Amino acid sequence: MANASLCVGLVCIDIVAESERFPVEDTDHRIPNLSYRRGGNASNSCSVLAQLGMKTEFLGTLSNSIQLDFIQRDFAEHSVSIEHCPIFPDCEFPTSIVILNACNSTRTIMHHPTNLQELGVQHFTNLNLNNYSWIHFEGRSANVDNIKQMIKFVRENSKSIKISVEIEKTRTVLGELLPLGDVVFISKEFSQFSGFPTMKEAVKGFIGLSRPGCIVVCAWGSEGAAAGQNVNGTDVVKCQSASAPCRIIDTLGAGDTFNAAFVYSQINLWDWKKGLEFACHIAGCKIGLKGFLGLEQFKQTFLFEASDNDSPC
Amino acid sequence: MANASLCVGLVCIDIVAESERFPVEDTDHRIPNLSYRRGGNASNSCSVLAQLGMKTEFLGTLSNSIQLDFIQRDFAEHSVSIEHCPIFPDCEFPTSIVILNACNSTRTIMHHPTNLQELGVQHFTNLNLNNYSWIHFEGRSANVDNIKQMIKFVRENSKSIKISVEIEKTRTVLGELLPLGDVVFISKEFSQFSGFPTMKEAVKGFIGLSRPGCIVVCAWGSEGAAAGQNVNGTDVVKCQSASAPCRIIDTLGAGDTFNAAFVYSQINLWDWKKGLEFACHIAGCKIGLKGFLGLEQFKQTFLFEASDNDSPC
Repeated sequence: MANASLCVGLVCIDIVAESERFPVEDTDHRIPNLSYRRGGNASNSCSVLAQLGMKTEFLGTLSNSIQLDFIQRDFAEHSVSIEHCPIFPDCEFPTSIVILNACNSTRTIMHHPTNLQELGVQHFTNLNLNNYSWIHFEGRSANVDNIKQMIKFVRENSKSIKISVEIEKTRTVLGELLPLGDVVFISKEFSQFSGFPTMKEAVKGFIGLSRPGCIVVCAWGSEGAAAGQNVNGTDVVKCQSASAPCRIIDTLGAGDTFNAAFVYSQINLWDWKKGLEFACHIAGCKIGLKGFLGLEQFKQTFLFEASDNDSPC
Repeated sequence: MANASLCVGLVCIDIVAESERFPVEDTDHRIPNLSYRRGGNASNSCSVLAQLGMKTEFLGTLSNSIQLDFIQRDFAEHSVSIEHCPIFPDCEFPTSIVILNACNSTRTIMHHPTNLQELGVQHFTNLNLNNYSWIHFEGRSANVDNIKQMIKFVRENSKSIKISVEIEKTRTVLGELLPLGDVVFISKEFSQFSGFPTMKEAVKGFIGLSRPGCIVVCAWGSEGAAAGQNVNGTDVVKCQSASAPCRIIDTLGAGDTFNAAFVYSQINLWDWKKGLEFACHIAGCKIGLKGFLGLEQFKQTFLFEASDNDSPC
């Protein structure tokens, strides 16, 4: 049954230090919480898609290290399949130390990439594409050529599968993925790096560089997000305010949540404007929640609430 | 055979982030190295004692968590016995995130204490004291009453076992351990907290508060260390310069190395002044080395080198 969503990208370990202040160099202080979490953009987006009710699979490389058991159990707890992930010996999972400052909600990351291999084209072409209706690719600068080949493989072997691509980091090479998706998510950082000062200008600018009919989506942090599409020669752009939770609990993975919620809306053939509202709503709800479990309730609240929070572009 | 040294205290996980700069709040940067290490003062001192050739045991509480296997293997790799350590379910090892800044050698620590129980008196009184010639206690403010009872148990049941006590953190309650050791290690922080501005004044001051004949040792970071003893009514104090390696590689556990090397010298009945020189020498060598493996070579270099690096107090 071609109903599964597949996210291709990275899984890593996030070591999350929740602190009441940012550390002062060369001092020692106690922190109230420290946790290990499964991280990585595609890995997080999988958790959200599964929470929203999708049959979901992650494809990325795994390490046969001491943390493999934790990673496998965490995917299972979030109902995400990893049955096609290759497992490599003699390497470690990429790891991020994330310092969350409870006072001002800043998020400081120290990332160690390690020696885990990137996904090869053969790991992807082994898949039976009939199983999937949507494939989301996390753009990774070290693996752009392989990702391009994977997308080519999908285009050549399936007319029905829709493809989304995420461009987050400010690496020029990631721009090569822009023309390849049916939906393209472009970060605020990449947009500014490309010379677009606002989300509206970014969406308009990137529409011209993307595949005909592509929906371009730019999330802009606390300002909200914009999306757009060229319809019969005219760029249609919509901006949406961010949806703020009552209390900020956990911002980690909010962007991955936004992307997954938008993908969910498109898999279910919603109008993309409604999808944009939904993605902002779910990302806002996620920030009020620790981790991703429990997000499904907010899909219901969205469906039952009137939607009148458009903001003019 | 009563030849083993026992260190009683904490084992924890150190997550060591080696960075080329201290992180700037709310940014994301890559770091060249990230490693998991077994940490904790008593746990580190055990590694050093074993490297110096002692039969060594650690006693502290362990958690039956995902990291237990790593901790057990690491103790084994360092030839430290943990056969009498109680293992508790439903808890985690205390964990420290340690940011090492390669530019200026600062060490910034965020420590999460977790819910691992402190060692109980019964875990200690189960031991056969005939196996040990030296017992070192890491002073822990949350466990001072139990440590006092453990020391009382040793005093009541053995005439031959020597006891050392470490007082590091600036907690007033730790002062209760001062009169109980044959050797007492007092940190620079606790000394300054107690009103002593120099290592010499600290040693002199603490001699008066310690057990008759006790050797008081104060390590003072890059300035070196001092030790002293009241001999026939007169306080004898010696100061020693720090021994600097050619290149600073890894300062983590340097203080624990100093303590272990001093204990080693006293187990082997060296004069404490020679012990002070040796402890400074080994701690300096440790800083030029990653981890503790390989320290044994520096015992030989000390024994063959002339010792003429006294500094006047």
